[in-house]
Amino acid sequence: MNKNINIAVIGLGQIGSYVLNELHVKKKDIEIKTGKKIKVIAISAKNKNKKRKFKINKKIFYSNPLDILKIKNLDIVIEAIGLSDGISKKIIETALKNKIHVITPNKALISKHGDKLGELAEKNKVNLEFEASVAGGIPIVRTIKEGLATNKITKVYGILNGTCNYIMSEMERTKDSFKNVLKMAQKLGYAEPGNPKLDLNGYDALAKIKILTSLAFNKKISKSECLMEGIENIDYADIKIADQLDFRIKLLGITEIINNSIFERVHPCLVKKDSYIGNVDGVMNAVILNGSPIGESVLQGEGAGPGPTSSALMSDLLSILRGNIKYPFGISKNKRFKPKIFNKDQSSNSLYLRLEVKDKPGVLSSITKILANYKISIQRLIQLPDHKSKTASIVLITHNANELDAQRCIKSFKLNKNIIKNPVLIRLF
Amino acid sequence: MNKNINIAVIGLGQIGSYVLNELHVKKKDIEIKTGKKIKVIAISAKNKNKKRKFKINKKIFYSNPLDILKIKNLDIVIEAIGLSDGISKKIIETALKNKIHVITPNKALISKHGDKLGELAEKNKVNLEFEASVAGGIPIVRTIKEGLATNKITKVYGILNGTCNYIMSEMERTKDSFKNVLKMAQKLGYAEPGNPKLDLNGYDALAKIKILTSLAFNKKISKSECLMEGIENIDYADIKIADQLDFRIKLLGITEIINNSIFERVHPCLVKKDSYIGNVDGVMNAVILNGSPIGESVLQGEGAGPGPTSSALMSDLLSILRGNIKYPFGISKNKRFKPKIFNKDQSSNSLYLRLEVKDKPGVLSSITKILANYKISIQRLIQLPDHKSKTASIVLITHNANELDAQRCIKSFKLNKNIIKNPVLIRLF
Repeated sequence: MNKNINIAVIGLGQIGSYVLNELHVKKKDIEIKTGKKIKVIAISAKNKNKKRKFKINKKIFYSNPLDILKIKNLDIVIEAIGLSDGISKKIIETALKNKIHVITPNKALISKHGDKLGELAEKNKVNLEFEASVAGGIPIVRTIKEGLATNKITKVYGILNGTCNYIMSEMERTKDSFKNVLKMAQKLGYAEPGNPKLDLNGYDALAKIKILTSLAFNKKISKSECLMEGIENIDYADIKIADQLDFRIKLLGITEIINNSIFERVHPCLVKKDSYIGNVDGVMNAVILNGSPIGESVLQGEGAGPGPTSSALMSDLLSILRGNIKYPFGISKNKRFKPKIFNKDQSSNSLYLRLEVKDKPGVLSSITKILANYKISIQRLIQLPDHKSKTASIVLITHNANELDAQRCIKSFKLNKNIIKNPVLIRLF
Repeated sequence: MNKNINIAVIGLGQIGSYVLNELHVKKKDIEIKTGKKIKVIAISAKNKNKKRKFKINKKIFYSNPLDILKIKNLDIVIEAIGLSDGISKKIIETALKNKIHVITPNKALISKHGDKLGELAEKNKVNLEFEASVAGGIPIVRTIKEGLATNKITKVYGILNGTCNYIMSEMERTKDSFKNVLKMAQKLGYAEPGNPKLDLNGYDALAKIKILTSLAFNKKISKSECLMEGIENIDYADIKIADQLDFRIKLLGITEIINNSIFERVHPCLVKKDSYIGNVDGVMNAVILNGSPIGESVLQGEGAGPGPTSSALMSDLLSILRGNIKYPFGISKNKRFKPKIFNKDQSSNSLYLRLEVKDKPGVLSSITKILANYKISIQRLIQLPDHKSKTASIVLITHNANELDAQRCIKSFKLNKNIIKNPVLIRLF
């Protein structure tokens, strides 16, 4: 590697323009730490003239990002467009083929095409770095690949979506509805103003879990459909009842090894109020690893936003500048095999169920009968009548119940005319 | 670097023999991750025939560890003796001079001789790795040097001594005295059976803080005397009163930049019960970093014991096997300067003071007069009389008080005949 390193930044939204500024500000620092002189020689974005927080040098602006990849002495590309396919994929593929190192925070793309892109990087002997794709401010990718490299990891879980965690925390704090808190989160920039769906439905957290699975268990990225539920259906009522039962509701991403198979999932969980994870609030992210001989390891930090993301991108840059080529996923493609996937129908969980019912005789008995049909036994039952509307909320905490039975039971509840709203099911952690 | 890597392990106590076993068990794993075949070709310890948890291969045993360093094709030495000077230093110096990479968990030695040893490593173009020297199970050294490499870190603090944290947690849980809990900790292997002083008086945590300072702020290791207090004088009474005031007592190590100077210290702190750090219990360690653009970053894990320490040693090994030579402290020796040290007398803190006094008229007034003399103002006062013995405990929480004033005030209290025991001072965090 030369002493002078040429870099291109493609995509100049919040993250791209922040990192561009960091590259400028930290130039000296980087030279001290790595002995390399970096220079940004090309940038590209959809809109050249958009107003940005940091000024861009228009002399090095390219309208077509693919033209940048033809530059002979380009060493590193930072892809900050963020699409799961399309131009993002094209840029990264072309760069790797042209023996240009790639840095990206793009979890949608890595969780979808990471295996193939990793192979391409390996084949062309360049680095593909994606520390920023999972929990920006937490150096979790590097920690698994390097800091805990020889541990046998059995489980990784945590709060991986700052938007959802912020909304859950704020609903509890303000006692307000999901809809109103979401609006406020959008105003404050904690949720996408246009379409926040991919955060709220669990997709974003699941992409991160898929990346963590492949790193922690040394497998290819799983392509199977996973248990994925978001927070869109959680009502303030649930948060309030959970609170009374000494729980909080958190959207958790979980990946673990059960009987040599991998069980990946994202769904809201009832977690104990006095647990560590129950006290990670607001936009914070947290990752907890169980491994041997390490025991339990916890990492917490800001998960999103241009600052933390940029910190992760810069650590990728330094990793490249230090010089050696690393396997993108910690081990060679030849040693990464397809994971065996645990059948989620065989999982079991203690459940929180909230049913809105007509307040009349026989309703409770019909509910308990359905539960018994599906071998779900009750640990705790709370009935909250609403005399005005002649309805009641029935809240149940069950003993461990089989997932398939639980799903069938919910279906059965939906057909029951005494149950007037969609039942709410939240798993206990 | 060759494909075949020869390793020696010197020191076969708890840690040395554990890592020896790990090297054996993880051989295949390491080859998959790095492409290198490792082989342990030499071991050494004080006692060849001591009973150990893991069997050793006596055919490769050397009575004199220095003979090992004469082996021509030796690549890496793991020093696990743990002395701050003497043979530990001699081994590492000789190894580095002979262009042998060194891995060590020895915080006493690194905090004392790290600069010189680092220079020696740099000069001889080999690696000196010491991830295990700070908070074994937490990959904090690598996280600062690599994961957060371009952040401007302003403060690092945490629980760095598992022994002290275990004792504090257990005193609270069992309502027992320091002496009894220490005995139990020694029985369980959480405190040194012989001489636990270096853990209890804060020395161990301070060694770690000195290493963290040099890494986080890119400075030479500070040689100045620091504010260092241990937990030996903390009574169950203090834990109980703290509890009533919604605090817990934790031994914290803290290093931060104040007015461009570095303020390093280790002392017990009153921390809020509902704070993150207030809930890190037992033998756990935790490190919290404040940096820009990262924000606040938290890492928690098991701090000591052969498992976590071994995990850290193995991550050092993999780092070496991946091939490139790194600056031991993240930047070249030429760029590491002596730190400017903040004068601790100029620091200020809200204080918890507990005074055991004769229960008679005029005592409180004489105490408040002394406080006023030293410009220390009271935020909260609790008087707990003990009618039987005609004594009382006076507990004070003060507003921010200057450190020098506080020390002078304590001296003055000690001379006061109405105060019948040594005053207890604990800083609020």
